[in-house]
Amino acid sequence: MMLSVFAVGGLPEFVAGDDLVTILGDAVDGILHDGDILVITSKIVSKAEGRQVHADDREAAITSETVRVVATREHAGGVTRIVENHLGMVAAAAGVDSSNVPDGIVLLLPVDPDATALLLCREFRKRSGRRIGILITDTLGRPWRQGQTDVAIGAAGIRVLDDLRGSTDANGRRLDVTVPAVADEIAAAADLVKGKSLGLPVAVVRGLGHLLAELDAPGARSIVRTGPDDMFRLGTAEAWAEGFEAGRASAH
Amino acid sequence: MMLSVFAVGGLPEFVAGDDLVTILGDAVDGILHDGDILVITSKIVSKAEGRQVHADDREAAITSETVRVVATREHAGGVTRIVENHLGMVAAAAGVDSSNVPDGIVLLLPVDPDATALLLCREFRKRSGRRIGILITDTLGRPWRQGQTDVAIGAAGIRVLDDLRGSTDANGRRLDVTVPAVADEIAAAADLVKGKSLGLPVAVVRGLGHLLAELDAPGARSIVRTGPDDMFRLGTAEAWAEGFEAGRASAH
Repeated sequence: MMLSVFAVGGLPEFVAGDDLVTILGDAVDGILHDGDILVITSKIVSKAEGRQVHADDREAAITSETVRVVATREHAGGVTRIVENHLGMVAAAAGVDSSNVPDGIVLLLPVDPDATALLLCREFRKRSGRRIGILITDTLGRPWRQGQTDVAIGAAGIRVLDDLRGSTDANGRRLDVTVPAVADEIAAAADLVKGKSLGLPVAVVRGLGHLLAELDAPGARSIVRTGPDDMFRLGTAEAWAEGFEAGRASAH
Repeated sequence: MMLSVFAVGGLPEFVAGDDLVTILGDAVDGILHDGDILVITSKIVSKAEGRQVHADDREAAITSETVRVVATREHAGGVTRIVENHLGMVAAAAGVDSSNVPDGIVLLLPVDPDATALLLCREFRKRSGRRIGILITDTLGRPWRQGQTDVAIGAAGIRVLDDLRGSTDANGRRLDVTVPAVADEIAAAADLVKGKSLGLPVAVVRGLGHLLAELDAPGARSIVRTGPDDMFRLGTAEAWAEGFEAGRASAH
């Protein structure tokens, strides 16, 4: 089994109102094979959707993108907010991004990357006659590890989680708890050729046809895990402060 | 730029005392190119190091691997402990693994994967005459996202973090906070061809020669981020409980 990953060349700078179906469709015309996964940086989807706002409005934009604050940290440049956003993702600044955009502008995440992935997947399957999959990706930091990796925030036509869990044995011991988050691993692989500084926002990942699925397969939203299962629903300092208040109140 | 990723065939089941330098060296003989990165599942390193213990001793093994408990959660099968281990990683069960090992056995993580990666990198560079890099990988869950991805827990001859941060502008605004954790992205890409169920513990990642480095480059330990920077040093419930006690005491 051979996996190959390469960037798609010849793409323009995207601006508000651009028709992604046509522009991306033209760019990949003739290069898609059955089983290919097209991995698209969310930034170009945001740009086409006109999701840029003035940098002066950055803090208000983060607030409006926020469903729930997880943690905040003060630093020299202001306050970083780690929040859950409308897509269910937990992300610094709600995913509002000021890198690789013109001065004075920040970029919000796409409105509905799963829906956009589905639209592109349906149209590209029709146009190319190939069974392909679509991922839309963003760059996220992680607790406990330096740096960022790309993950999938939109998906269509692909199994985003490859459930390998086996049965339990007679003692109730799980034989295997492994569910590779393959959509995130594919996003990471594609980032290695797209490159933040190279201006190559789209890559083809070839060789994973066994992960393709029908168009009604769950999108990237199904990867997010918040709610009762979430052991880190608040930052340590925030949880401690809430506990402190409750403890003080309980003593009265 | 073309990235290709493929698994290395013909490897035996590894057992305690196996000489990885010779066995892996033979397996990749003649296939390594300049710039290749050899990605090795930590499980085979653990097996060669004899790091298996009886499943009855699993809980004691987790305790002995633990530097600090981050969070615990009770469930039907017992208690899951998320801990920081001796390698600085935050991992469920300290990385002690009962999947894909014989019944009745669990496997600890390698003793010093950065040191093993360095040994292998030095020997394989010498033997092959090629400038290659080595990653040793493990499978980790993530807060806020379902499933697991592979990450690097040992590294040699490679830049594990690709620091793209630019300078700050006149207002102190960081132009770019992007530091791709390329070692983790490469580990993820390799997992897509190694496959948990395929029994293929080693892959070659070709096309990233620009990420290779000298043998004295920082290892995978430099990716872990714990200590004062860590906004999630305790689980929410644990931090809340500590705060509660402090709040109650403060009221007296």
